[in-house]
Amino acid sequence: MTAISEIGEFSLIERIFAGGAVPSDDCAAIGQRSGLSTLVSTDMLMEDRHFIRADIDPFDLGWKAAAVNLSDIAASGGRPTGLLLSLSLPSDLPVQWVERFAEGLRSAGVPLLGGDTIGSPGPICINVTALGECPEGKQMTRGGAGPSDLLCVTGPLGDSAGGLHAIRHGRKGDCPAALLRAHYHPLPRLKEGVLLASTPGVTSMMDISDGLASDIPHLLRPGLGADVDTSSIPVSADLRSYAAEDAIKYAVGGGEDYELLFTMRPECRPEVSFSVIGRITAAHEGIVWKGGGAEAVAFDHFNP
Amino acid sequence: MTAISEIGEFSLIERIFAGGAVPSDDCAAIGQRSGLSTLVSTDMLMEDRHFIRADIDPFDLGWKAAAVNLSDIAASGGRPTGLLLSLSLPSDLPVQWVERFAEGLRSAGVPLLGGDTIGSPGPICINVTALGECPEGKQMTRGGAGPSDLLCVTGPLGDSAGGLHAIRHGRKGDCPAALLRAHYHPLPRLKEGVLLASTPGVTSMMDISDGLASDIPHLLRPGLGADVDTSSIPVSADLRSYAAEDAIKYAVGGGEDYELLFTMRPECRPEVSFSVIGRITAAHEGIVWKGGGAEAVAFDHFNP
Repeated sequence: MTAISEIGEFSLIERIFAGGAVPSDDCAAIGQRSGLSTLVSTDMLMEDRHFIRADIDPFDLGWKAAAVNLSDIAASGGRPTGLLLSLSLPSDLPVQWVERFAEGLRSAGVPLLGGDTIGSPGPICINVTALGECPEGKQMTRGGAGPSDLLCVTGPLGDSAGGLHAIRHGRKGDCPAALLRAHYHPLPRLKEGVLLASTPGVTSMMDISDGLASDIPHLLRPGLGADVDTSSIPVSADLRSYAAEDAIKYAVGGGEDYELLFTMRPECRPEVSFSVIGRITAAHEGIVWKGGGAEAVAFDHFNP
Repeated sequence: MTAISEIGEFSLIERIFAGGAVPSDDCAAIGQRSGLSTLVSTDMLMEDRHFIRADIDPFDLGWKAAAVNLSDIAASGGRPTGLLLSLSLPSDLPVQWVERFAEGLRSAGVPLLGGDTIGSPGPICINVTALGECPEGKQMTRGGAGPSDLLCVTGPLGDSAGGLHAIRHGRKGDCPAALLRAHYHPLPRLKEGVLLASTPGVTSMMDISDGLASDIPHLLRPGLGADVDTSSIPVSADLRSYAAEDAIKYAVGGGEDYELLFTMRPECRPEVSFSVIGRITAAHEGIVWKGGGAEAVAFDHFNP
């Protein structure tokens, strides 16, 4: 097992780009076109805070580092155009780990435009910046919801939290593979994001990274509330089989689903799969959870 | 002294933006215009690898985190349009430290568009992504130099390395303030970068971050070499007074000057202050250092 300290920095960078052209200039450049906006988002992942090295295949970690940023592009209704990667790596890290990580990142299919690679005595630290673009003035934001808008999600919630629970509690053996996959290999809803952003009547959008209970408030401007019917929240059969009656708690309180949460006018008919889980209100009552099973989670901290 | 763990994440983010609007959407958006290119660059700074917390005012660190990225925009001939900041911070870090850091970053005068703030048990880790723009097809690159081009720099070299030497060896007291300022508060050559990029006959450009001896090779495509006259390298009177006959070693081997290194056709007359320090050759002889004082530095690792 070769450590990264045994090869030069340039050799390491060549492996990250896997034989493709290594960017050599101070900046990457992307052509602009009038009528479009550039979208940017950045996220940092720190070892022992966001991931445990022994618990995740570096390929999955690379994928996930890309996916969480691409999910932000999706939530804005954009099309991704590139990624920048900064890596701080302990010198005894095996070269193979970095190669697998980069392979996972590249498997997202978005051009890797550049980055920065440094050695450090500290934990692995990963920063990804994603770039994208959307029609100018058509960026989806969190701020557009109004009273009586429907509150919707693009897919089942809680699977990632179920997978994380199994990993943390040594239950990977009796956990449906789909839950582990949801945690290790989340799929950013890029196609859905673009379709929703181009649908008149879709009023606000974000991705669910912290969990439904934490994320809904971001869509509520002062004076707005929401009624949420927990019986309408989509939950997979796999999560029901793993978590039984607790499934709804994972769906409401668990994070990292990367499904899109959006609001729309009631007459809106977007051409994506989605579930209506509630309605925006002007009741100044904050969020009212109906249907049972969610209250404790919605107001306490949930930790699968 | 309040620790960051004693205030909420949102309160911390509000302090980073110092009363300005805190970005609330998943992505920041910047309008595009046909005929322009978006430039992007990213850099990671890790505590104990790139800086010692006790050795640098957080204001200067914030400035520097911005400046090193803006210098990449300058080297590409671009105008900066925004910054993204990711911070990983130990929970016992004083709030005041973060406020001073953000103040320094904002003092660069470039809009802070968004970012990510996480708590971690590890060292402080900072990632800045800089965005900029330049006329399409006019991005300066490292690859355009040809034989007989002149090799030039925009200003004195070695001051930052002199300052770093003083810091490391407890000699701040007898070090000229200008050297410490060069190390703590480097000035990205943004105006010069734009002017040089728009001057016909300027053939390649980069910023000097690793040091002249390390950076010149990046401008030499296969088959090219360079003759460098060390007596032509601009060295400040302050550095001469601090380092005496070693001054040229700091100028050749020291990093973090963030002056621009560029090549141009001999008939070119750019309207910026610059010094011609050598000439590109087709001699296949690599870099020939003339004028004395540099050979040992140019081939060994220099560590002020």
